[in-house]
Amino acid sequence: MAYVRNAWYVSAWGHEIVSDRPVGVRILGEPIVIWRDAAGDLTAFEDRCVHRLAPLSLGRCEGDRLRCKYHGLLYDRSGRVVEIPGQVRIPNSLRVRTYPVIERRSWVWVWMGDAAADEGLIPPILGLDYPDRHFIFGNGQLDYAAEARLINDNLLDLSHVSFLHTETFRLSETWAREHPKVTEHDRSIRSERWIKGQGLLGKLDTGELIDTYFCYEVFVPGVLLMTVRTYPVGTADALNGQQPDLNQPAEEFTSQAITPLTDKTARYFYTMGQRRGGDETVYDLTTTEKAFAEDKMMIEAQQRNIDVTPGWRFISIAADRGTVLFNRLVEKLAREESARSSTASPPAVAHQ
Amino acid sequence: MAYVRNAWYVSAWGHEIVSDRPVGVRILGEPIVIWRDAAGDLTAFEDRCVHRLAPLSLGRCEGDRLRCKYHGLLYDRSGRVVEIPGQVRIPNSLRVRTYPVIERRSWVWVWMGDAAADEGLIPPILGLDYPDRHFIFGNGQLDYAAEARLINDNLLDLSHVSFLHTETFRLSETWAREHPKVTEHDRSIRSERWIKGQGLLGKLDTGELIDTYFCYEVFVPGVLLMTVRTYPVGTADALNGQQPDLNQPAEEFTSQAITPLTDKTARYFYTMGQRRGGDETVYDLTTTEKAFAEDKMMIEAQQRNIDVTPGWRFISIAADRGTVLFNRLVEKLAREESARSSTASPPAVAHQ
Amino acid sequence: MAYVRNAWYVSAWGHEIVSDRPVGVRILGEPIVIWRDAAGDLTAFEDRCVHRLAPLSLGRCEGDRLRCKYHGLLYDRSGRVVEIPGQVRIPNSLRVRTYPVIERRSWVWVWMGDAAADEGLIPPILGLDYPDRHFIFGNGQLDYAAEARLINDNLLDLSHVSFLHTETFRLSETWAREHPKVTEHDRSIRSERWIKGQGLLGKLDTGELIDTYFCYEVFVPGVLLMTVRTYPVGTADALNGQQPDLNQPAEEFTSQAITPLTDKTARYFYTMGQRRGGDETVYDLTTTEKAFAEDKMMIEAQQRNIDVTPGWRFISIAADRGTVLFNRLVEKLAREESARSSTASPPAVAHQ
Repeated sequence: MAYVRNAWYVSAWGHEIVSDRPVGVRILGEPIVIWRDAAGDLTAFEDRCVHRLAPLSLGRCEGDRLRCKYHGLLYDRSGRVVEIPGQVRIPNSLRVRTYPVIERRSWVWVWMGDAAADEGLIPPILGLDYPDRHFIFGNGQLDYAAEARLINDNLLDLSHVSFLHTETFRLSETWAREHPKVTEHDRSIRSERWIKGQGLLGKLDTGELIDTYFCYEVFVPGVLLMTVRTYPVGTADALNGQQPDLNQPAEEFTSQAITPLTDKTARYFYTMGQRRGGDETVYDLTTTEKAFAEDKMMIEAQQRNIDVTPGWRFISIAADRGTVLFNRLVEKLAREESARSSTASPPAVAHQ
Repeated sequence: MAYVRNAWYVSAWGHEIVSDRPVGVRILGEPIVIWRDAAGDLTAFEDRCVHRLAPLSLGRCEGDRLRCKYHGLLYDRSGRVVEIPGQVRIPNSLRVRTYPVIERRSWVWVWMGDAAADEGLIPPILGLDYPDRHFIFGNGQLDYAAEARLINDNLLDLSHVSFLHTETFRLSETWAREHPKVTEHDRSIRSERWIKGQGLLGKLDTGELIDTYFCYEVFVPGVLLMTVRTYPVGTADALNGQQPDLNQPAEEFTSQAITPLTDKTARYFYTMGQRRGGDETVYDLTTTEKAFAEDKMMIEAQQRNIDVTPGWRFISIAADRGTVLFNRLVEKLAREESARSSTASPPAVAHQ
Repeated sequence: MAYVRNAWYVSAWGHEIVSDRPVGVRILGEPIVIWRDAAGDLTAFEDRCVHRLAPLSLGRCEGDRLRCKYHGLLYDRSGRVVEIPGQVRIPNSLRVRTYPVIERRSWVWVWMGDAAADEGLIPPILGLDYPDRHFIFGNGQLDYAAEARLINDNLLDLSHVSFLHTETFRLSETWAREHPKVTEHDRSIRSERWIKGQGLLGKLDTGELIDTYFCYEVFVPGVLLMTVRTYPVGTADALNGQQPDLNQPAEEFTSQAITPLTDKTARYFYTMGQRRGGDETVYDLTTTEKAFAEDKMMIEAQQRNIDVTPGWRFISIAADRGTVLFNRLVEKLAREESARSSTASPPAVAHQ
């Protein structure tokens, strides 16, 4: 599976990176250190000292510089070695690779490509700074022993909620039996649908019945933004199944990002919020955590099956439309950037 | 090491497989799901959904069908997909491989070959339904981090009991110093011997002395059936060392099966029983468990040595006669079926 | 990285090897059993029985022989099989490889080469029998998930103490900013230096100031011998920075040995002592253990970075002089013995 490199990958929550503690992460197999200097600015380096490959994430910040704690080499924010203890001359070639890094709405994004970083490609994600929201998960995080692509696939085809989450979310088979409206966009796939005359969030066993409009978009490389809007029964039919006014704020939303750590491990970041004063039982903590564990259990088992099946392949069914379109989009973008960079010198990638 | 595929492999105990809980196992590296339908019948499938390779062992039984719990594909007992939620047309080619499966005397057997399954090849094993027996281990199970063949070798050469189990079974060196009578059969090797004038089961430190006749047979692919018969001292000599009447029920018996899960892991199933009202201290639980742990410790250490010894080889000693004959038999059968299936299309095998 | 095989490797502490308990170790990837016979003498064998590769370290001593506890093969001290239970004829070729082994000053040394073992090549190490010393660590041991060479590198360039151990040893940056005098010897690199007018052991925050002379030598394959001598402030200058009288016993000493277990694991043996009645707070136990944990944390992280960096390479800085000279020496010796043994038949080596 190809990955798009000219894209922003979520690597951490902003509050996790404090000035005296650099953070080591893996993205697309590459060890990366993200550190915050005394002025509060973030910098991302290749996480290995040029000297003996010691991780710079074990180093210490000194003002706007980062010092390797093994033998004391000091780096400025451009990745250049500016001091070698006990040595006068410093070759100008001594530098580590830097990565563009941005903190946006409480998420920390790293640009993995060799093309110029384009801030406009950060998806319009919601985070802890979204006003008037109660957060059920302010900063959820879950590590997977599975390829990121399998988690993206899971999110792009929510028909699975009818079967996998029957004992947690208790959603009806409407999710699997009827298809959402799926549309393609430049760097995302959007999926939207009405669930008519069911309980809150489409639950089987909720007393009060409503119409709900679900709308979510999955952006390259793997960022899901979803909103949930509720209406009196009959609204969907009155609108002839067309979308309601999406400019109105949603009752519930969730933002999720999947980052490939290595070929077969991924980190799942997520936040979930609802309008303050809303029904706080909808996304209850325990149920949501159990449902996320169901996904993880299934997807890691799927990965293990893939690992023991030489020449494995997937087949596609009608419900996979969003998945198929998204993977086709990823492959197209990856192919394009590979074509571009074959004339330039591509950065080395260490998958593992 | 070759394995015979046209053979029945023990995969579970019958009572473990209940109607609402399919069981996933590995045999010869292949993921297999065994499930019991509402009528009580067993079915065995390749344990991966055709759609996205999710394990069907995480699925749910619906009458005589099995539904994948990821996206809801429904399979009938022939392995054919009979429903895809939200999709009208179902390609006829959508099916998983099935394996013949039989429950016999509380053991569940799976046929791994491509030839027609032959029930006559299930060894005459004893199980929980053996009458008038007290079971010390009704359904023992032990997982090994070692190749199944090494465990078979251990069982085929009981000379090891004189050295490995000195602090548990406390058997005499007669087991190693004198050889049993070993005979070859169609799909098994039989080993039988008198241990004269020693304690019960040949123990060093038992007060009362007896003659004991041990008879066991190891069947392809790895099933040991053993009986123990005791007599007054002098009986062996009176019979000139010939076998006693084997039609009489034995005082003690044990049935054991070794199943290769993967190249270097195996599952050991065993049951041990003795005549109700007999001396129940012979096979005491703690001693037997300790002795089994001694075998496991030695064999797993042996495997680790093999793993770090390029070009390793075994040498054979006089005590190995049973082992050598059995491995020769396995290789002959494996060679024959490989010759047969090279003209047909063999099933894919995923060792790991 | 090449290793010198014609060298003595520390494999254990002498008191660990008692007569009824053979000890299994790995050196350069090879499984080795060291056992002490009834007379107290040590023998080292390849740790796998010729029969079925069972570890002889699970065996039992019988006088001056070692019996495999799997099927009872008995070995004499030359590695020859002298008994096979139940078998009369014993092929003369049945033998395991033996390794020269010596106990010297509480350390057990194994010779891994094919050339004749030369006792003169055991470094002049100090051990538990050093007179009039209080031992802080009599027999320290630490296992590393890293290549031995990385630990040697760490010891050969103590500039790291200025940065890595700031919160434990609290040594000044003098260690990194000024270079020691480094000299080459036949099978070792020696490093010596004055630290002038600082606290005991060069500590930043000790009240009383002294001059300290540090002298250490790292011998092939990886044995560090260090002494620490203290003097009134001004002594170094009075001596014009020349070495003091090294025939006087040192206040403190440490002996350390790094043994490659496999390609990427190593065992670190160390002892530390000081003159009885000296300041016993210098090397306090907790601080030293924490500092050793800092080294281990850094070096194992370095190894993990190496593992995910195809085509990785180190660069050398001024502080690396000792490291560079030592690795050059190791490579020269390894090349020489490889040239010699290419005409002879080299012993098989199983790295893993």
